[in-house]
Amino acid sequence: MSKLSLNIVLIGAGNVAWHLAQELQNKGQNILQIYNRSVEPAIDLSSKLGCDFTTRIADISQDADLYILAIKDSAIEDLARNINLKGKLVVHTSGAIEQDVIPTKRRGVFYPLQTISKEKKLNFKTIPFCIEASKSEDYNLLMRLATLLSPMVYNINSHQRKVLHVAAVFACNFSNFMYMIADDILHKEDIPLEILQPLIKETAAKIKRHKPKGVQTGPAIRKDSETIEKHFEYLKEGNYYDIYKLLTESIISENENEL
Amino acid sequence: MSKLSLNIVLIGAGNVAWHLAQELQNKGQNILQIYNRSVEPAIDLSSKLGCDFTTRIADISQDADLYILAIKDSAIEDLARNINLKGKLVVHTSGAIEQDVIPTKRRGVFYPLQTISKEKKLNFKTIPFCIEASKSEDYNLLMRLATLLSPMVYNINSHQRKVLHVAAVFACNFSNFMYMIADDILHKEDIPLEILQPLIKETAAKIKRHKPKGVQTGPAIRKDSETIEKHFEYLKEGNYYDIYKLLTESIISENENEL
Repeated sequence: MSKLSLNIVLIGAGNVAWHLAQELQNKGQNILQIYNRSVEPAIDLSSKLGCDFTTRIADISQDADLYILAIKDSAIEDLARNINLKGKLVVHTSGAIEQDVIPTKRRGVFYPLQTISKEKKLNFKTIPFCIEASKSEDYNLLMRLATLLSPMVYNINSHQRKVLHVAAVFACNFSNFMYMIADDILHKEDIPLEILQPLIKETAAKIKRHKPKGVQTGPAIRKDSETIEKHFEYLKEGNYYDIYKLLTESIISENENEL
Repeated sequence: MSKLSLNIVLIGAGNVAWHLAQELQNKGQNILQIYNRSVEPAIDLSSKLGCDFTTRIADISQDADLYILAIKDSAIEDLARNINLKGKLVVHTSGAIEQDVIPTKRRGVFYPLQTISKEKKLNFKTIPFCIEASKSEDYNLLMRLATLLSPMVYNINSHQRKVLHVAAVFACNFSNFMYMIADDILHKEDIPLEILQPLIKETAAKIKRHKPKGVQTGPAIRKDSETIEKHFEYLKEGNYYDIYKLLTESIISENENEL
């Protein structure tokens, strides 16, 4: 297979565009142009890359092989409708938006599944890419491109991407909320959360090698009613009683359904 | 301060005793004897250390400076009552048991806060030690001993240790349950949980540098009711609707209480 060398226009100059454009260039792709509505970020990124930029939709180059919309979710549909790119492959980078909001026939999704902030250096090799495309040649092209950046490339359609988002809310947003509750409980007793950091890290690392169901520990899974009662007693005045109760009952009932 | 060199009897030969005895010996302490009810683990560990062992409570050496009870929670109280060690310092290694179940005047707790399994090599430097003692000289001695093993040593009394346990249920047991729900949701769509591993790892790592409250993300904290409705719709037939609802409402209300 010949070396991949695409002409790419990056639409957007925010966090995702910032890192993605540089990494694509590092991997031998040609960033033809940056489009961004406001001028300063467009200048910043295009001068970093040594490429052209524009702030006018009408001036977006027609000469690229691939147009990557790395802009906020709420702007994708409008912008995709306003650019005039017949026959060109247009993709967005969002986890939450369906592929079909892009009106061109050749459309797709190129979604890096990680929290991305501009300041923090990214190791792309640890970022999963979720790929979708309306045409199989374009799907293959996006797979080849993603594989240049990361070994973790997945075929994920729009429905799966929505489900992935629900799962990520549990695994990440709600886990962080559990850390917040722990922090709040410890704070009242003058204990720093860092004391739990090694255990939190180990809990997150364990699921690389094990199914979470197989490594569930704690009073609920042991049905240690004496400890659970002590915890209820401690929590009953506060905001977290209901959460402790529902999650404890759910762990117990999940486990009983297995038997 | 002179180099610490204690004569220690380890009561127990399970996971904690196994790692702790070897690490204490590596750090220049003298393991005088292993006591264990059943003979095989006692032989295994004592031959690894090159020290004496016994399976009879009456034969426990009277010559040690420190007796460490590294046995299961439910056995601590009984054993502490049956050994006859007047004037000796006796400690247990449990997170859940109060110091005062040990009847000797010189008593304490020497609690390593990490999941410990026999097979897995431990890096003691990453294990927080929670120390408590009835007498301040003994507290100082245990602090010096713990500091040989780890830079993370905390003064935690029995009440704080109970609260720490409640917090650990949220931060670790309940987080793992969130991973389990994510795994279950993804499994139905043939998506492997590994796709979320980098995000889970980053979420756990973030709280080293930030308060969890400051880095809460997701539809609840954004009050993104459109996405929340989509997620409700997806979850409404299943077991996880109530959990999603309670946690989402709690995140929203926690945030509103701040304003």
